[in-house]
Amino acid sequence: MENFSYHNPVKIIFGRQTIAQLANEIPANAKVLMTYGGGSIKKNGVYEQVKAALAGFDLLEFGGIEPNPHYETCMKAVELIRKEKVAFLLAVGGGSVVDGTKLIAAAVSFAGNPWDIVARRAPFASALPIGVVLTLPATGTEMNGNSVVTRAATQEKLSFSSPLVYPKFSILDPETTYSLPPRQISNGVVDAFVHVAEQYMNPPANAPLQDYYAESILKVLIEEGPRALSAPQDYNVRANVMWAATMALNGLIACGVPQDWSTHEIGHELTALHGLDHGQTLAVVMPGVWRTLRAQKFDKLLQMGKRVFGIAGGSPEERVEAAIDATENFFRSLGTKTKLAEYGLDETVIEPVAQRFAARQHPFITPDMVRKVLRQRL
Amino acid sequence: MENFSYHNPVKIIFGRQTIAQLANEIPANAKVLMTYGGGSIKKNGVYEQVKAALAGFDLLEFGGIEPNPHYETCMKAVELIRKEKVAFLLAVGGGSVVDGTKLIAAAVSFAGNPWDIVARRAPFASALPIGVVLTLPATGTEMNGNSVVTRAATQEKLSFSSPLVYPKFSILDPETTYSLPPRQISNGVVDAFVHVAEQYMNPPANAPLQDYYAESILKVLIEEGPRALSAPQDYNVRANVMWAATMALNGLIACGVPQDWSTHEIGHELTALHGLDHGQTLAVVMPGVWRTLRAQKFDKLLQMGKRVFGIAGGSPEERVEAAIDATENFFRSLGTKTKLAEYGLDETVIEPVAQRFAARQHPFITPDMVRKVLRQRL
Repeated sequence: MENFSYHNPVKIIFGRQTIAQLANEIPANAKVLMTYGGGSIKKNGVYEQVKAALAGFDLLEFGGIEPNPHYETCMKAVELIRKEKVAFLLAVGGGSVVDGTKLIAAAVSFAGNPWDIVARRAPFASALPIGVVLTLPATGTEMNGNSVVTRAATQEKLSFSSPLVYPKFSILDPETTYSLPPRQISNGVVDAFVHVAEQYMNPPANAPLQDYYAESILKVLIEEGPRALSAPQDYNVRANVMWAATMALNGLIACGVPQDWSTHEIGHELTALHGLDHGQTLAVVMPGVWRTLRAQKFDKLLQMGKRVFGIAGGSPEERVEAAIDATENFFRSLGTKTKLAEYGLDETVIEPVAQRFAARQHPFITPDMVRKVLRQRL
Repeated sequence: MENFSYHNPVKIIFGRQTIAQLANEIPANAKVLMTYGGGSIKKNGVYEQVKAALAGFDLLEFGGIEPNPHYETCMKAVELIRKEKVAFLLAVGGGSVVDGTKLIAAAVSFAGNPWDIVARRAPFASALPIGVVLTLPATGTEMNGNSVVTRAATQEKLSFSSPLVYPKFSILDPETTYSLPPRQISNGVVDAFVHVAEQYMNPPANAPLQDYYAESILKVLIEEGPRALSAPQDYNVRANVMWAATMALNGLIACGVPQDWSTHEIGHELTALHGLDHGQTLAVVMPGVWRTLRAQKFDKLLQMGKRVFGIAGGSPEERVEAAIDATENFFRSLGTKTKLAEYGLDETVIEPVAQRFAARQHPFITPDMVRKVLRQRL
């Protein structure tokens, strides 16, 4: 096991009717800005629950944060916050609303160009406190310090990470997910699955507890993901998917083990350049990454095949192929396409993505690796 | 899944040579009191590592905290702290040193009788900040707000819990455990196993991730525990046992599920009255608790039997018995005795333990239940 530090101070409040606890978690005299997305919270009752819970608060609103939150939109919120002297941000929505709110929180008192926080990982000294009401299980942002933001003007989708943008608390009421469209549930399950894979499908590090934990999350996603689609109002199913997605990226399964993240990095380019949903890009890219980096992922593919999918027969080579196929088939069983052609994309998409990594000098995601990965995914 | 809150702000610093990082974690101008136990840290190099790491600090010492830390000893530390105006406590040792230090931290500014913190769960408003250098994997106290303290004068062993005594940080260097006697390793593995069981071996709550996580910890303890005895200087084995013990009682696997703790409560009395090690009492008591509460633990005993011990054949009744036997045999394989007679105790111990629960009005640990449990363990 490698040395590690783990420090995750996010308070999770999980369960039915928990939005009502909001007022206990926000300083009584703080001027609060509620951030949200395209307005689904006004249709599913969450907006009313938040307003009711914060009836006594000085509460402003900023809606319209897009999926793959735009830097440009976030900067409008920053302007409002500075003008109104907001002291607390409450992100109400899915991963994009939370991620955008994290950039907003960091940018408010940042002296330089806030895009540098993302593009150059510029350090920042403080951030406004954030609370979260999560309505979509997927990204894990509710229990980490990560944020992914898109600059619409340049079609760049980039991430930053800081303990300063850990939410102070995150409220997770599985009932708020009942009204999600099936595509968002599928995307969320795929996203959580791939989060686990980025931290697990790597050379063994003699860390059996981390391995078992990662496999635990995968098993819950495989067992409960399809049920979340077939029985959308089954509370326990939604609760289990929601908790699994949070646990997939709160740092715990990364303790003491190597990580990858190339599926995410390559996938981000497909979103930035072609508008695929985040989860869709992951389902397309990951089988290609696994086959391209097959040698270093071999032992863990065997292990996952056996422990997660119950693959026992055949040679090790055959079992590894079967494990990759089983993963792709699981994504497809959720209704998520896994080939570029299914999204109307052909081989012309490959070179522009590869070129984006030419400048980046990533330790192992080279243009040539990107070409190898995506050529398999046509 | 039941509603829950989870908030664990303890920073874990894990790995080789991590004691050297101490100075980064303690406020530079704080007067520090290092608390420790019987002096093993002076033989295994830990004391020197701490002194070297804190060379620039105003550092006082308080040694002699016993296994099953005595309230009376803790009060001497409180006196010293008040006199010397200590601002930070650094507990260096195993669970007893950390637990004692938690009571010390809470008692320093407590206006009433500090024993009430334990005996009456009296609320307290503040506590001195605590840091931990852990040298014995067992109790999980390094990542929770729990403390168990013994009053020597009245032979009472009782616990309290508060978020105010969460350690600010805990440093876990598996190499510090190389010199532990086998009995302490065995006790620690049993303790961690039973911590998991108290949170897992209960009626199913439709919380598959929590179940898989609990089983993950059990499997690691079963796989790595015996190796920790046979290969005491295998770094990865010690690291895996240490991390498993921490994860066994940091609140995570308790999220959204019912808990028991009767094995601990009954076991505490055997320590308080007869001086058995904590781990020894658990190995004696738990099989009796499982058989006494067999109906409510039936489904999970079956599940653990299958998933953890690979028990497949026979009727459900037989598999449940086999699961209990497999657990007891695991304890015995670590060299831990599991019957009262093996500790020279007979049926005369039962009634005094039962009587202690007569006054306590515990929701389900009644004198009659205690009698049933212990009669099976002669």
